[in-house]
Amino acid sequence: MSTKAVFYHAGCSVCIDAERQFAESLDPAKFDIEIVHLGETPARVAEAEAAGVMTVPAFVIEGQSYHINFGANISDLK
Amino acid sequence: MSTKAVFYHAGCSVCIDAERQFAESLDPAKFDIEIVHLGETPARVAEAEAAGVMTVPAFVIEGQSYHINFGANISDLK
Repeated sequence: MSTKAVFYHAGCSVCIDAERQFAESLDPAKFDIEIVHLGETPARVAEAEAAGVMTVPAFVIEGQSYHINFGANISDLK
Repeated sequence: MSTKAVFYHAGCSVCIDAERQFAESLDPAKFDIEIVHLGETPARVAEAEAAGVMTVPAFVIEGQSYHINFGANISDLK
């Protein structure tokens, strides 16, 4: 069974690059990947925060948050 | 042709978790992944720094560094 991986981003250049290198490059046999643009779906900011996301771009996999470089603080997306 | 991806780490718990979730999960059809333990191969710290790695765990892909969460400062590995 594949693992759910959510990639949260805000459309910034750091985010787009991380999306290209990671969100589109995880093994599709292992992961079911959902890409969430928090700038376009601000209603999901609370969900990302609850999962531990402090900055974007970030992944949430199996309840753990993985921040990749720094694009924006999630507090700036509210 | 697959892209070279180097994953630098230092054996810390944050590193091991990132290795499991990312280094072992990138699509093998797209990436040729090398895993480098800088604690065991300190001679490669300079190479990682030259590629822009400031903290581990981190990937270097196509000349870009991608820092995942925070395990250790590379300056502490010298």
